[in-house]
Amino acid sequence: MPKKKIKIKINPIGKSFILEKPTNGLEAIVNSGNKIKSVCGGKGTCGKCRIIILDGKNAPVSGREKEILTSDEIKCGIRLACQQIFDRDLTVYIPSSSLSEEQKLQVEGEEPDIEAKPVCNKYFLNLKKATLKDIKPDFDRINEALRKEYKVDAKTIDLKVLSQMPSAIRENSWKVTATLRENPWENEIISIEGGNKTGSSYGIAVDLGTTKIAVLLVDLLTGRTIDRIGIINPQIRFGEDVMTRLSFAMQAELNLKKIQVMVIESINKSVKKLCNRNKLMPEDIIEMTVVCNTAMHHLFLGLPVSQLALSPFLPLTTRAIHLKAREIGIDISPGAYLYMLPPIAGFVGSDHLAMILATRLYKQKGNCIGIDIGTNTEIALKTKRGIMSVSTASGPAFEGAHIRYGMRAASGAIERVIIDPETCIPSIKTINDKKPAGICGSGILDSIAELLRTGIIDRKGKFRADSRCLRRDSKGNLQYILSPQFYKSLNHKSQYTKCEDKYVSINQKDIVEIQLAKSAIRTGIEILLEDSSIEFGRIDKVIIAGAFGSYIDPKNVVNIGMFPKVSLKKVTQVGNAAGVGAKIVLISKKERELAEKIAQRIKYLELTTCPEFNDHFAVSTLFPEASEII
Amino acid sequence: MPKKKIKIKINPIGKSFILEKPTNGLEAIVNSGNKIKSVCGGKGTCGKCRIIILDGKNAPVSGREKEILTSDEIKCGIRLACQQIFDRDLTVYIPSSSLSEEQKLQVEGEEPDIEAKPVCNKYFLNLKKATLKDIKPDFDRINEALRKEYKVDAKTIDLKVLSQMPSAIRENSWKVTATLRENPWENEIISIEGGNKTGSSYGIAVDLGTTKIAVLLVDLLTGRTIDRIGIINPQIRFGEDVMTRLSFAMQAELNLKKIQVMVIESINKSVKKLCNRNKLMPEDIIEMTVVCNTAMHHLFLGLPVSQLALSPFLPLTTRAIHLKAREIGIDISPGAYLYMLPPIAGFVGSDHLAMILATRLYKQKGNCIGIDIGTNTEIALKTKRGIMSVSTASGPAFEGAHIRYGMRAASGAIERVIIDPETCIPSIKTINDKKPAGICGSGILDSIAELLRTGIIDRKGKFRADSRCLRRDSKGNLQYILSPQFYKSLNHKSQYTKCEDKYVSINQKDIVEIQLAKSAIRTGIEILLEDSSIEFGRIDKVIIAGAFGSYIDPKNVVNIGMFPKVSLKKVTQVGNAAGVGAKIVLISKKERELAEKIAQRIKYLELTTCPEFNDHFAVSTLFPEASEII
Repeated sequence: MPKKKIKIKINPIGKSFILEKPTNGLEAIVNSGNKIKSVCGGKGTCGKCRIIILDGKNAPVSGREKEILTSDEIKCGIRLACQQIFDRDLTVYIPSSSLSEEQKLQVEGEEPDIEAKPVCNKYFLNLKKATLKDIKPDFDRINEALRKEYKVDAKTIDLKVLSQMPSAIRENSWKVTATLRENPWENEIISIEGGNKTGSSYGIAVDLGTTKIAVLLVDLLTGRTIDRIGIINPQIRFGEDVMTRLSFAMQAELNLKKIQVMVIESINKSVKKLCNRNKLMPEDIIEMTVVCNTAMHHLFLGLPVSQLALSPFLPLTTRAIHLKAREIGIDISPGAYLYMLPPIAGFVGSDHLAMILATRLYKQKGNCIGIDIGTNTEIALKTKRGIMSVSTASGPAFEGAHIRYGMRAASGAIERVIIDPETCIPSIKTINDKKPAGICGSGILDSIAELLRTGIIDRKGKFRADSRCLRRDSKGNLQYILSPQFYKSLNHKSQYTKCEDKYVSINQKDIVEIQLAKSAIRTGIEILLEDSSIEFGRIDKVIIAGAFGSYIDPKNVVNIGMFPKVSLKKVTQVGNAAGVGAKIVLISKKERELAEKIAQRIKYLELTTCPEFNDHFAVSTLFPEASEII
Repeated sequence: MPKKKIKIKINPIGKSFILEKPTNGLEAIVNSGNKIKSVCGGKGTCGKCRIIILDGKNAPVSGREKEILTSDEIKCGIRLACQQIFDRDLTVYIPSSSLSEEQKLQVEGEEPDIEAKPVCNKYFLNLKKATLKDIKPDFDRINEALRKEYKVDAKTIDLKVLSQMPSAIRENSWKVTATLRENPWENEIISIEGGNKTGSSYGIAVDLGTTKIAVLLVDLLTGRTIDRIGIINPQIRFGEDVMTRLSFAMQAELNLKKIQVMVIESINKSVKKLCNRNKLMPEDIIEMTVVCNTAMHHLFLGLPVSQLALSPFLPLTTRAIHLKAREIGIDISPGAYLYMLPPIAGFVGSDHLAMILATRLYKQKGNCIGIDIGTNTEIALKTKRGIMSVSTASGPAFEGAHIRYGMRAASGAIERVIIDPETCIPSIKTINDKKPAGICGSGILDSIAELLRTGIIDRKGKFRADSRCLRRDSKGNLQYILSPQFYKSLNHKSQYTKCEDKYVSINQKDIVEIQLAKSAIRTGIEILLEDSSIEFGRIDKVIIAGAFGSYIDPKNVVNIGMFPKVSLKKVTQVGNAAGVGAKIVLISKKERELAEKIAQRIKYLELTTCPEFNDHFAVSTLFPEASEII
């Protein structure tokens, strides 16, 4: 039999790799550069390396797995990576609980293969020493050497760099490294270092989210991400959602300054930490890129936000921004620039553009939808006629807000739910396998889909009052309890029993929140399709980007009707595409130009001005027919 | 007889004007926009409106003049403007004592006629109000209006201006004035003001001297200088001369910062004062230009100076500088730029370039010398082959330093000296007619020339020991006393009498200082001429620029041999040409580009590397033969 190569795809990270021969699962995952928890080192005793073999219900189950995993987990396709042999093409899902705590904030994204050709380039110069007979100024001396040896010409130089130049030159025997930045308009010398430093060149890419900030340290010579840090956006204490934060910033100029300084300081700290642990100095960072939504963009730059927070929700500018990083207090190389991709509209930020760039959505064959689910969900539809984007106010329900037991994707959050249709008893999985403390976005999505599949709720989202598995809370409201503790000591026959409020549960109001959220997204999709006169059946690919989108089960996205019915084969989860976009434009000038061109081509559709919005929205709150469920 | 127009030239200001009919002198001077002291209002009683009628020894003398003026003054051509009738072509010199105290620091310069077409232009925009159906960002909205109404396109916008934009737009009913600056590389919006502000547009031109700073408030629409302030450079307390100041700045980074902040603060104060008294705000200033010597240039920008202070005396850059004024703490419009003309070399600053531009030296017919006398004297020789410049270390003697009774051109300084060849008794004129407190540059120059003319010193500069007019000081050194008090109570026959040291006098060491100074300048001229193979006789014009150059008597400059013998008709004193240059490049983009081109064309000759320097210098210390004296 001829040798067959084995193709493995890792979700939600979205990375693929090839195995030359059947390989132990844990080994294969680690060797491919993906990180997964493992304490026992592959002995099958710690149970940390849980993976889900997608479309792999028939994956063999080892004796160890039977000991460690519950039968429900096994039913769901959960296995231990160290007990599996990857001997066939597989899509493997690494649940968030198998990633480290820090990694939770650092979802990687699928990266296109981009050549590292950044806007900043280093040149080593062996200068002629100045004498009374050769009195060229330092700047001209450097420029002469640049022209002679590298055929490049510096048009200007940063004032701070000019200040540091004479000592850098004279303390290093007239041997220096000049960093040139190809500005949009001229070549500028943004750094002069002593000696030959052409072998090291670093940049920082930032995905500045409303909740999370991902900071990537990138080698500009190879294009490789060397290290990364994920932190919580500290502005969160002035509002978890964008609107509260904008209101705070609008109240006083000092507030705006405060909220700006706060996020800049925390980025500075992350840069310092990244540099420290990689034996670099912040001064070694010669370029920074930032992508974010438009509100974060304005707050980061200290721009006023009232025109953005109030109708008609205008950003101040939708141009790319080149700014001396020091001008807003970013501590990297004194002459370094900050580059911000252009926002598209008030509610479609540069993170959306970064997603379109990173996923190559703009050049996908056929019709393609790219979606990043969040408080505001941005959806892009790429057709032959171009790219059209909408933003839809899906609300914070998927982030755990407005849900009675909702919480962020932190330790103890219920992230997976399966309900046994026979017993109506749920099997749950919490982050880090802690005692359930609440329920996060993917858990809520699973719950609703399972409640619907098992008929506990109807198409309108109403609890079927005759369902024997519902309980009443202290106020008499119906609820479905998720906490296993409740079921352990229970007589399953007892219907409508009042119970204490100590258990994590889903109530009617929670379901309505999810209906509103999914309806907003579905409406966005429908209006995009209508505007382009395309039926959903003609969509060739659905790309789900973003951290939340990486943790959800696409099947359930379809089952609750957030998307029209679609073959799961067409759905890809690409992880943090915005972060990847930030990195791509950091390492490639060409990609930066490309992104700016794409930005020009994106047609923004303002949903609130669409007359059909309300009709669509009302219809979309309904869940799919039972027959539609996959 | 046909009516003949009367041409009047005012020195040292260098302005000319035409009279249609014979006119009273005071009236003519005041009407032509020149300022002259007058307390009695033309009655001939206060004696404040002293003028010197050059080539006008035969000017009629009125009875009032005979009462007010001494016979020596009358002999020197001094008259009262109010008593003279200007009925023939005249060159009239207004001595510094007839200018107000403040004006002393504000010597005006002769201005070429330049059309006001600055780099900054204002555009009034009546914007369309944003609605949900028209959601262009503010910046695009402004740009659209600019393109539509004025066919200009803003490529970028200052971040601070962007911050102020939304309120400026919304608080002024969507009517704003945008200021665009034609940067070297792109059009930038540097200001957004509410309402229509196209009728007012202001800039500041600064001539930043080692000793004096001239700050001009200029109307950018008309090109007119509205107001001006002259102040002493506060850095003076860290060294009167450039080298001491550079040493101070080199000692510590903090010193450099201190000396920088000091000069910036004093410029800010002057701008504020100018704005206050013209009912403007510093925010109304949209551009600033600065010209200065290279040391002041570096100190102003906070650039390190050790490479400039030590051989081979390199400036860091000889490019023009465009810098956000706020970046170094200049308080004008938040988005405004500071423009600095390029320095030429370590000891030839942008003030020299400004002089070449303002005097039109670069396009004078024939061969022309331009000279600005100071501690360092810069000399430019314009021939068919181009412009060549040197800097020569003439020392601070002409500024009163290193001279026993030397002082600045302040109240009480002896500024004019005539020695009666018969009696050897001096007639002197002090600034503001105060009791003599010392002697300033022009007074020293006059003294030496007169000592030489009257044979009190010989060609080598030695006192003739047989001269009956010399006295010995308390140390026994020979000296020539200038103070009239001494002569009032004196038996003139008594030779070599010891006298107290309380009188202002000239001693042998003072003469040597002047010999060194004039020799340095003469050497510069000779080497320039040699390098261009041109004899001094073929020089068609000598332009003396600068404040000091405005107060001196050109005849005496020739008589002490600072210049080769030249017809005084070829000599022009143009006043503060550097300040005029700063103003020209403020009001005209074309002139700015021209100046940068001229800078490229100026060949700098380093005197210290010329093998013939020492020989020339030794010969030049000699004074001219008696027969050469004019």
